[in-house]
Amino acid sequence: MDMKYIALLTDFGLDDHFVGVMKAVILNINPSVSIIDISHNIRPQDVFEGAFLLRNSYRYFSKDTVFVVVVDPGVGSRRKPIIIRTADYTFVGPDNGVLSLAVEEGSTRTALEIKNDKYFLKPVSNIFHGRDIFASVAAHISKGERLENFGPKTEIFSKLNIPIPEIAGNSLKGKVVYIDRFGNLITNIEREALVRFINNKKFEIKMGDTVIGDLSESYADATPASPLAIIGSFDCLEISVNRGSAKDYFNAEEGRKVEVVLK
Amino acid sequence: MDMKYIALLTDFGLDDHFVGVMKAVILNINPSVSIIDISHNIRPQDVFEGAFLLRNSYRYFSKDTVFVVVVDPGVGSRRKPIIIRTADYTFVGPDNGVLSLAVEEGSTRTALEIKNDKYFLKPVSNIFHGRDIFASVAAHISKGERLENFGPKTEIFSKLNIPIPEIAGNSLKGKVVYIDRFGNLITNIEREALVRFINNKKFEIKMGDTVIGDLSESYADATPASPLAIIGSFDCLEISVNRGSAKDYFNAEEGRKVEVVLK
Amino acid sequence: MDMKYIALLTDFGLDDHFVGVMKAVILNINPSVSIIDISHNIRPQDVFEGAFLLRNSYRYFSKDTVFVVVVDPGVGSRRKPIIIRTADYTFVGPDNGVLSLAVEEGSTRTALEIKNDKYFLKPVSNIFHGRDIFASVAAHISKGERLENFGPKTEIFSKLNIPIPEIAGNSLKGKVVYIDRFGNLITNIEREALVRFINNKKFEIKMGDTVIGDLSESYADATPASPLAIIGSFDCLEISVNRGSAKDYFNAEEGRKVEVVLK
Repeated sequence: MDMKYIALLTDFGLDDHFVGVMKAVILNINPSVSIIDISHNIRPQDVFEGAFLLRNSYRYFSKDTVFVVVVDPGVGSRRKPIIIRTADYTFVGPDNGVLSLAVEEGSTRTALEIKNDKYFLKPVSNIFHGRDIFASVAAHISKGERLENFGPKTEIFSKLNIPIPEIAGNSLKGKVVYIDRFGNLITNIEREALVRFINNKKFEIKMGDTVIGDLSESYADATPASPLAIIGSFDCLEISVNRGSAKDYFNAEEGRKVEVVLK
Repeated sequence: MDMKYIALLTDFGLDDHFVGVMKAVILNINPSVSIIDISHNIRPQDVFEGAFLLRNSYRYFSKDTVFVVVVDPGVGSRRKPIIIRTADYTFVGPDNGVLSLAVEEGSTRTALEIKNDKYFLKPVSNIFHGRDIFASVAAHISKGERLENFGPKTEIFSKLNIPIPEIAGNSLKGKVVYIDRFGNLITNIEREALVRFINNKKFEIKMGDTVIGDLSESYADATPASPLAIIGSFDCLEISVNRGSAKDYFNAEEGRKVEVVLK
Repeated sequence: MDMKYIALLTDFGLDDHFVGVMKAVILNINPSVSIIDISHNIRPQDVFEGAFLLRNSYRYFSKDTVFVVVVDPGVGSRRKPIIIRTADYTFVGPDNGVLSLAVEEGSTRTALEIKNDKYFLKPVSNIFHGRDIFASVAAHISKGERLENFGPKTEIFSKLNIPIPEIAGNSLKGKVVYIDRFGNLITNIEREALVRFINNKKFEIKMGDTVIGDLSESYADATPASPLAIIGSFDCLEISVNRGSAKDYFNAEEGRKVEVVLK
């Protein structure tokens, strides 16, 4: 089956030539594929951040997409390059958990270890598998090459977890797992878990000593420069500041605690 | 009429997955449209900056282009999503003035309020209209959907203004309205207004206590590391430093005053 | 001969609209060309950096590629706009050396001064030749326009050099010429020169007082947070830190000395 798109998510940044070279390698193999950048500004070697953004973006893409995800601090070590196909999507990357948060949501899945160097860019470095293995393999997949040609099935692959919020009495305790460009604080409390916990009771949301109150429907519900809590575009509880940055307001980093307290 | 291009201008940045997701949404609806990024690094929620860059770029694009401009601090509030068609171009974005500086230059225009949720990505969030409304609507426009299908005509839309320079005696007083990557200080004194004011007389250009002198023809006219005044690529008076940064030289920010004085 | 791709390498950054406008100009002339970004984040006016990244990326691209390289502090001065065709590739840019490190590697070459303003975007500014000359000319080249139509042959063009490492007794002395996003310190000691110098003898690599030791095969060979030496993706000696940044570890900048000492 031919694939129309290759989506790229890496920590290569946009200052160097790395991403441009990956695109050149892809188009040399399959000139008719379209390449879409998800982001290249994952913090260097931050596998969780890559996994988290993949999980929050893949479902918006056409099923004709091969995802190439390269956040790969172990490049050249014994971590395996893998392909995972779920019911709907195809992912390529290192077996270090960066694919796992997206994959866990797809029901059926096949995982393959990439071994057949016929599909690699030669000479293969120990340094830049994004170019020599992942881009090249994804381009061949997009041309319709059968997955079993790339290597043997592999049963296990590395998994990451989003930490699960804890319930303690009348309190649901979560934390910030991602901060976006606008300084919105995205927490690990998913909509569903929040709704279940609240169960139509009254509640308030707190970050440290600051009582934020109820959930807002939109940013504009809060006074400008005031904090608010909202179910954001990640479908999780977010702490935001209307026309400002919650990151700055709370001087917050990943890991900052947030609490939902039943009244 | 089918449109070949969708041009994107947002404050979403390139760190998160927001822009990649908008592109996925667009290509799911119209796989044959080409997407061109104008910039995604508008300062968060800086509507004027978005409007100013749109005004300075739209005319270089083919008339087959739909512009999607999302700098939208009021997302989810009562500000309307709109489409504006001028004699030559089609713009999509929030009705907060971000389209207005480009639109004011086109003679004929039609403005529509986007209301028909048939063209939205469901479920529509209150958070990310760039994805759920603007990207989706623009993709449908690019496929040739008739504008009247998106919603009713609307007469009024929000307008921004570039502050007009003031004439006081033999002095034209303007200010810096934008600073580019090279530290060039772009002012609100447009070429035409400057030529009319000077009217073939002798003049000098000053920033604070620094006399910059006459207009240069090119950066190379000035000694390296010295300031110069020039009609730049924005077709406005710019203060620059040859092989350096005027922003650093003058420690300047938007709003810094500049003066043209007749001798 | 039609060219399928235009590759862009500039110091225009991604904050302003400059790159988007170049793409609009290109696609207005040749709607069927594909544009690939190498990087736009060359440090403002750093011609060496542009030349160095071009040299390290061009060979991965299809021979159907026109490279447009704009790092052009002398824009509007008497430096010439040029086209260089080597045996395999076509380059467009200012004659200030930015093309030279890539071109020196191709055996046959023709250099032309771009003079025929029939191929320029009018009116031509003295400010933004990336838009008015280089993008426009590259688009016409990509449509198959014969090179001799753009202007006369020119024999000489500006050349840059990567500084050559020095041999002093049993020591090979090089320096850092580029630092990538991960903080890897890329030196001017190329693989070949290193192999010739070592000549199968024992050696150690030093940066200042720090003895780094032998060459590693991959980043993972070193203890996390420890420095290592490796032949990196630039095919040069690199100093890196496993799961960290050598730039931070050594507080290093371009120019920092590195030494290979025979035991």
